[in-house]
Amino acid sequence: MGKAIGITLEEARRIIAAAIEKANQIKVMMNIAVVDEGANLVAFERMDGAWIGSIDIAQKKAFTARAFDLDTKSLGENSQSGQQFFGIHASNNGKIMIFAGGIPIKRGGQVVGAIGVSGGSGKDDHSVAEAGVAAAKP
Amino acid sequence: MGKAIGITLEEARRIIAAAIEKANQIKVMMNIAVVDEGANLVAFERMDGAWIGSIDIAQKKAFTARAFDLDTKSLGENSQSGQQFFGIHASNNGKIMIFAGGIPIKRGGQVVGAIGVSGGSGKDDHSVAEAGVAAAKP
Amino acid sequence: MGKAIGITLEEARRIIAAAIEKANQIKVMMNIAVVDEGANLVAFERMDGAWIGSIDIAQKKAFTARAFDLDTKSLGENSQSGQQFFGIHASNNGKIMIFAGGIPIKRGGQVVGAIGVSGGSGKDDHSVAEAGVAAAKP
Amino acid sequence: MGKAIGITLEEARRIIAAAIEKANQIKVMMNIAVVDEGANLVAFERMDGAWIGSIDIAQKKAFTARAFDLDTKSLGENSQSGQQFFGIHASNNGKIMIFAGGIPIKRGGQVVGAIGVSGGSGKDDHSVAEAGVAAAKP
Repeated sequence: MGKAIGITLEEARRIIAAAIEKANQIKVMMNIAVVDEGANLVAFERMDGAWIGSIDIAQKKAFTARAFDLDTKSLGENSQSGQQFFGIHASNNGKIMIFAGGIPIKRGGQVVGAIGVSGGSGKDDHSVAEAGVAAAKP
Repeated sequence: MGKAIGITLEEARRIIAAAIEKANQIKVMMNIAVVDEGANLVAFERMDGAWIGSIDIAQKKAFTARAFDLDTKSLGENSQSGQQFFGIHASNNGKIMIFAGGIPIKRGGQVVGAIGVSGGSGKDDHSVAEAGVAAAKP
Repeated sequence: MGKAIGITLEEARRIIAAAIEKANQIKVMMNIAVVDEGANLVAFERMDGAWIGSIDIAQKKAFTARAFDLDTKSLGENSQSGQQFFGIHASNNGKIMIFAGGIPIKRGGQVVGAIGVSGGSGKDDHSVAEAGVAAAKP
Repeated sequence: MGKAIGITLEEARRIIAAAIEKANQIKVMMNIAVVDEGANLVAFERMDGAWIGSIDIAQKKAFTARAFDLDTKSLGENSQSGQQFFGIHASNNGKIMIFAGGIPIKRGGQVVGAIGVSGGSGKDDHSVAEAGVAAAKP
């Protein structure tokens, strides 16, 4: 089996557009980031009026989801005090986010990148990220 | 006179699109960032194949151009060893870039944001940034 | 009694090879780091497909295990909210990891280095680290 | 044209082994790092007696060579005071090294990773890095 095709800028735009459509539906202004296979940023957009503090968080959620091939909601559940990954947020020089909104993007069974969304509740961020992932190429 | 209208996501996209058109003309793959009046990121795009190390630089050039309301080419000239601002790159927690590619975006005499471009020579980065600025609303 | 012989690159390779053998047995792709008596990195290997975010964590688990002459699993138990070392992860400029996978390497009763493993559950990381330690010179 | 195959751990070991052979010939103890296409570390080795301060530098040279698809010797020449990239060392959160020892690894015209070497003079570091690159798959 060959290597899955990576995320292009064109695809990242489509993923972000789908996420924004969902964000508009639920009426929450979001910051949205897409990273590639190497966890490096491909594209980012902040909706008008979205939280400034979430510019950083959206990018770091995307990084985290690719860094551990896991959505940040699940990672967060395992990173609370008393859980097996408690303290993981101190790694990777402050780039690890352990609350919902980051989801890996998979193709042919391989993780090829990730999306990170920040601007609302954990539930909202996660659902907007899911809408973005659904727009990725199968 | 009222306050100049800020940069919306829609305008940031148009600025980036104009910059990418120029980058394609000169055949250099670029990272392009747009910040608003508060020097906070609005949108970012990395062209396929553009330097990974320039993801950070493009964003910081945009920050710097707004931080000092000055293009980073001019700031750079004043920040060489022996010049009046030498050492300024150590300020702002590493967010200051002192080489060409960042340009403020003005409207009605006021700086409302900035663009940062990174991916080629200083000359190329600056010319692509100029193309982006030219697409901003007058 | 003289000073215990330190960990050479050759020994670090043998420790990592033993850890990788164990990782292959349990079918979890791991990042593995070995530090010396001074808590400085001797060797590191990332198995193909192992988590990118664990590159940093494996190295920091090894650092932590040598920094406190204690496995990071035990340190973690004492570093949860309410425990005596809660907050220790904020020390040492972000280099302290408080979950399982780091184990000191001892020789003649002295700690001469440590191994750090990251890529799976805490239990998996710890067992792979143990396999590495077992390959160190007595 | 398909995407070039990335650097596996096995290939990284071979690259490091070739670099160490060269380092032994010129009798300079080196730190050697190999990163993949995403600029993420694959393997690292410190020869016995090599500089501790170069553990970090070798890794950052490899990162830099991939970040800008350019050897760090050339980048350094363009990053002196008065040159077009002066100040670039302040970008990427301290991960940019602007002196010789980092070289990209190419395959089929694409950069698939990089090597970083630190432990001696710039000339020595560069020549050891070249020996490593020569061992990469064509």
